Amino acid sequence: MLHAVIMAGGSGTRFWPESRHRRPKQLLPILGGQPLVAETAARVRPLIPAERTWVVTHQDQAEGIRAACPDLPTDQVIVEPCARNTAACVALAAATVLESDPEATLAVLPADHLISPNEEFQASLAAGACAAEEARALVTFGIRPSYPATGYGYIRQGARIDSTAKLAVHKVERFVEKPDAEVAQCYLDEGCFLWNAGIFVWQAKTILQAFEEHLPELAKGVQAIMAATPAERPSKTAEIYPNLESLPVDIGILERHDTVRVLEAPYHWSDIGSWRALYDEVETDSARNAAILPAGGELLAEEAEGVLAYSRNKKTIAVLGLNDLVVVDTEDALLVAPRERAEEVKRFVERLKAEGKTELL
Amino acid sequence: MLHAVIMAGGSGTRFWPESRHRRPKQLLPILGGQPLVAETAARVRPLIPAERTWVVTHQDQAEGIRAACPDLPTDQVIVEPCARNTAACVALAAATVLESDPEATLAVLPADHLISPNEEFQASLAAGACAAEEARALVTFGIRPSYPATGYGYIRQGARIDSTAKLAVHKVERFVEKPDAEVAQCYLDEGCFLWNAGIFVWQAKTILQAFEEHLPELAKGVQAIMAATPAERPSKTAEIYPNLESLPVDIGILERHDTVRVLEAPYHWSDIGSWRALYDEVETDSARNAAILPAGGELLAEEAEGVLAYSRNKKTIAVLGLNDLVVVDTEDALLVAPRERAEEVKRFVERLKAEGKTELL
Repeated sequence: MLHAVIMAGGSGTRFWPESRHRRPKQLLPILGGQPLVAETAARVRPLIPAERTWVVTHQDQAEGIRAACPDLPTDQVIVEPCARNTAACVALAAATVLESDPEATLAVLPADHLISPNEEFQASLAAGACAAEEARALVTFGIRPSYPATGYGYIRQGARIDSTAKLAVHKVERFVEKPDAEVAQCYLDEGCFLWNAGIFVWQAKTILQAFEEHLPELAKGVQAIMAATPAERPSKTAEIYPNLESLPVDIGILERHDTVRVLEAPYHWSDIGSWRALYDEVETDSARNAAILPAGGELLAEEAEGVLAYSRNKKTIAVLGLNDLVVVDTEDALLVAPRERAEEVKRFVERLKAEGKTELL
Repeated sequence: MLHAVIMAGGSGTRFWPESRHRRPKQLLPILGGQPLVAETAARVRPLIPAERTWVVTHQDQAEGIRAACPDLPTDQVIVEPCARNTAACVALAAATVLESDPEATLAVLPADHLISPNEEFQASLAAGACAAEEARALVTFGIRPSYPATGYGYIRQGARIDSTAKLAVHKVERFVEKPDAEVAQCYLDEGCFLWNAGIFVWQAKTILQAFEEHLPELAKGVQAIMAATPAERPSKTAEIYPNLESLPVDIGILERHDTVRVLEAPYHWSDIGSWRALYDEVETDSARNAAILPAGGELLAEEAEGVLAYSRNKKTIAVLGLNDLVVVDTEDALLVAPRERAEEVKRFVERLKAEGKTELL
């Protein structure tokens, strides 16, 4: 059966002041609807119902995850005592799901991306599951680049493989790290490089075998956790998990593995990695202004264009004579910055850390 | 005895979104301390104690005035049913004070100006009272211009008068309306023009005689109000006051009167008429940034200079990569604008009026 494993461990400082340690991006309704993790879970329905949906998260965020996804069975929130990157996360989740379903196939999904339409996404996961199951392959999804992005890793497509999957399946020739601008332009021109979106499909038993082969220490650690009784498991996890090797699953497993496949994603995708990226995804008016505000809130723009106004409070945000800003309002903190420099909010996060103002982090 | 008559009827839309109809500028602690009306009352102590301090205000603001000035006897808040400019305000106040003190001399003070130091201000009022009493004169105070302002009326000093007052007393040659930039520069160069700050001293009986002489209809209206019993007076005021002539006391009385004197103010003065003007009056840091925030609030500026950040909430206001802004935060509305264009907030007020959003006005 196909299960969803939603990776929801990100700390998300790039949406400060709206994102905080206990309220990271995946718990925020930054598109104005549900928290992103709930949108991610809803996006795969009815292909994958709640009883086969799992969320892996940091212990400080588990309560928030349960509140955001109330229909998720409690023991399907897999709690990490600390963040150890995606390899450890994937191994722990695969071993946990395998306990209840030895024939499980896993769709591994980041919790905080924007994808549409849902139907195309579900169809791609079904095709990926087919490819994964027929060849015991590790399947990844690539996004056709729309510009020479330097913020993503790339996947170079290899030869096309015969498959009964309903999307074209290719071998992966290689994974490449985030390129500089010049190289990114080459990748774009060459036409066989896709963005690595961090979305995967594989059988639980296949990925666990791959861990034994490529990261045997990490595999042993996870086996030791699973060997504990359910009552002892939290303390065993707290003991072992922090010592597991911390690296991305792409680098730790996929780059070293033989049978890796890539499918080109047939949907619109954004990792909405900043306020700037969010602006690019939301509806704007004739003055290119966008408001993500609850009912009763309003952006009043006078000689102001290209403004993104965001608040979860019913607030009137009045901007005069300034273009291309982000204005983000929260109960206790407020951000005003040029939209193109929104990534630099991390400077405030670092400064608040240095000043010990943890209540704002 | 010297009484203070504080004119607190302004509707103050220029400090939107902090100022509202029921919370106009004079009720705001925009300098970070007390509401301006309370600072105005405190500024004349001990020269004029609470039992000789009177405040004239609009009925919608009377409650706010009483809350801001709790030591003021209740019947010393003189309530206007509607705003009829300063002539009617001055006449009603003079007649009211005269009832309790037939020999009263009145220091007529706008409620929402910034003046310092207090000692110099008190000394100037004492000198003005002396000049007013010895010649039954209407005394006004002029501010030595520091730049060719086009936003104020001017007073042209005439010949110096012999007086026992401790400041030089001059005749007023004429009052002039707000000039254009070229004329303002001439006034500045000429050296005998002073800004009209709207601060006056006169005997109650003298100003009432001047009303009888120059605005007899208005004088009759106020006499009819005062002829009513205390119980009937509110309804009589509501009936008569809205029909009184609406004009400034400078134009209605002072420009037409013979015995008018001007004293040059020996203190620093600002009418803090906008967020921009407020910025000019508050302390700034080495990056020319100013924060008017309660304890626990903070302005975090990264590559940002010349910013005025204002909130009455304990808020962290983070500004990145933008210079010379005003950022004003309130519970339900937020303003971001270039500091030099802060006067244009009235555009939002007009728009909200047009949209019927009275809750934000």
